[in-house]
Amino acid sequence: MTQNVAEPRPGPTAGKPVTIAIDAMGGDKGPVPVIAGMARSAAKNPDLRFIVFGDKSRLESLISKRKPLSGRVDVRHAEGVVTMDAKPSQVMRNGKNTSMWAAVDAVRDREAAVCVSCGNTGALMAVSMLRLRKTEGVNRPAIACLWPSRNPNGFNVMLDVGADIRADAEDLLQYALMGTSYARVGLGLERPRIGLLNVGTEEHKGRAELKQAYDLIDAAADTARFDFVGYVEGGDIPSSRVDVVVTDGFTGNIALKTGEGTAKLISEALREAFRHSVLSRIAAVLALPSMRRLSKRIDPRRVNGGVFLGLNGTVVKSHGSADATGVSAAIKLAYQLGAAGFHERVKARVASMSHPMQDQGLIGQNNGFQ
Amino acid sequence: MTQNVAEPRPGPTAGKPVTIAIDAMGGDKGPVPVIAGMARSAAKNPDLRFIVFGDKSRLESLISKRKPLSGRVDVRHAEGVVTMDAKPSQVMRNGKNTSMWAAVDAVRDREAAVCVSCGNTGALMAVSMLRLRKTEGVNRPAIACLWPSRNPNGFNVMLDVGADIRADAEDLLQYALMGTSYARVGLGLERPRIGLLNVGTEEHKGRAELKQAYDLIDAAADTARFDFVGYVEGGDIPSSRVDVVVTDGFTGNIALKTGEGTAKLISEALREAFRHSVLSRIAAVLALPSMRRLSKRIDPRRVNGGVFLGLNGTVVKSHGSADATGVSAAIKLAYQLGAAGFHERVKARVASMSHPMQDQGLIGQNNGFQ
Repeated sequence: MTQNVAEPRPGPTAGKPVTIAIDAMGGDKGPVPVIAGMARSAAKNPDLRFIVFGDKSRLESLISKRKPLSGRVDVRHAEGVVTMDAKPSQVMRNGKNTSMWAAVDAVRDREAAVCVSCGNTGALMAVSMLRLRKTEGVNRPAIACLWPSRNPNGFNVMLDVGADIRADAEDLLQYALMGTSYARVGLGLERPRIGLLNVGTEEHKGRAELKQAYDLIDAAADTARFDFVGYVEGGDIPSSRVDVVVTDGFTGNIALKTGEGTAKLISEALREAFRHSVLSRIAAVLALPSMRRLSKRIDPRRVNGGVFLGLNGTVVKSHGSADATGVSAAIKLAYQLGAAGFHERVKARVASMSHPMQDQGLIGQNNGFQ
Repeated sequence: MTQNVAEPRPGPTAGKPVTIAIDAMGGDKGPVPVIAGMARSAAKNPDLRFIVFGDKSRLESLISKRKPLSGRVDVRHAEGVVTMDAKPSQVMRNGKNTSMWAAVDAVRDREAAVCVSCGNTGALMAVSMLRLRKTEGVNRPAIACLWPSRNPNGFNVMLDVGADIRADAEDLLQYALMGTSYARVGLGLERPRIGLLNVGTEEHKGRAELKQAYDLIDAAADTARFDFVGYVEGGDIPSSRVDVVVTDGFTGNIALKTGEGTAKLISEALREAFRHSVLSRIAAVLALPSMRRLSKRIDPRRVNGGVFLGLNGTVVKSHGSADATGVSAAIKLAYQLGAAGFHERVKARVASMSHPMQDQGLIGQNNGFQ
């Protein structure tokens, strides 16, 4: 909501109510932080409406204590809960009565613009694929995340970070297209810079499918209105060289978790360093505002929310252990995507580019798609 | 040198001179930090000897200014320099006159126990493969690095971090065996805990070759005297769950550079946070000792040195932009590996386990290998 999308928006814009479907039960901490996060978002944004799925009496009791939610929440009972260790295949077979399933169905039935869940990623992707189906022209859906970076807006986009463990050259091209749409809507970048993750920046390195993807993405850049910066390395993910980092879900997931793990190790070491002596404890008190500024910049809760791309509807996956701040960040992102008509944009883009090689002449004349 | 290897050592031990071959020319900063790093190491460790390769008159002038190096360095002239952007194939064809080539040959000819170079990684691996050849039984050599962790000794081992971009299940088993040897010598761990990097810790996730590797490594654990903790995720790389993280070179390289990039982003943000106001500058002064403790713990220069494993000789790759501290850390590691007869240990281990499935009965009785 703080970033503006520079290009004219064809879909619904801010000011109109946007309804978000919430799976309130699937996270590690149950519904308490979910309702707290909803209240926080609702207090900031008068356009938000919610449909919340889960244990009705428990949810109603929690919601009744939160003034900003008054009159803006439709509570729907769902008996079942998808646990964090549930296998996706089991949930696909037996998950019809769960809050996760029902929340995804609210997007399928166009009751809600976007679904938000703190639940099990594998199960959420499986249910989303089953109920929403893949967008025409997409082979593999992807999960996109925001990553703290040196760019002026503070973030880069990376995808896929875990929807699938393989991606061929065509899939990587589709990730570049979907990532372009996401960077426009999520980061307000008119012409995002796309990079392809590899082990070296020289063109002779890397796996065969990456070389093919390099050529496909390079050829699509002008038509799809992004800049292709070529190969980028792990160290470039938080850099200002690139806005969107494209990779397969296996590599992206390892990179995401390695980055999170490194940040966590450093914060712990930082806390220990300040606890070391009387002098360092005094320093810690004086340094508190500086540390708050720092942690605000790199706090993973602020970038909470992986977005599922390539489905007929938008799903935001919040961290399983998200607190109210994290849930509120995921809802903010969901609102932003819903208000911008994000799903329709991605769909139009992928449809226009689904045969980039054959259709290039035709597509070259069509600059109106997102 | 600060860690002791608990098991009895068959090879030469500390107290005897260890000769290190140094490629003085290949790094980003030329020979100045290399000679400075050598001097730093020599001052601390009386057992170090060097053979240094490069521009003889320049090296002799630099060395003459460093007292600790007096009488301990054999300078050998090499006309050529491998530049950071040289292609490995070109160096293999035309690199005979380079300092890199000559330094590797000193290990090949058993004049030096270990080679250290700050040069181009791809070229160094290509020359090392060509001149030292692969150890019998090894399909793909690997590069192992140390990673700051929550373990008592402060580090984990990860391999492969960039030697090769593919690895099948047998290769990953060999990485587990070579990583076990490295953790024994480098970290002094009698029975290292090995983890296999994957996108999820549940056994049903991941790529097919990882499932095969899981079974192979699991079956080899008892005989090769390591503990197999199963799959680990990116967030576990700096954890205390595991001592050695096994992965293919593509994934390992991305993870390594992502971790380094994240650490760098956070340090920059930390510095900015402290520069923000007068109060934060005062806090910064008071916090200085705490920050020094922190940076000592996570300083990448302290863990400088990727070790090439699986060749007939040990090569340590230092960062291209290493300063004297970084070069000295790489030399310390090289000394440690040379003094412990590391190369012979890895060779014996891989030879004993090269047909783990067929030979298990036989190998089971042989507990003497490293």
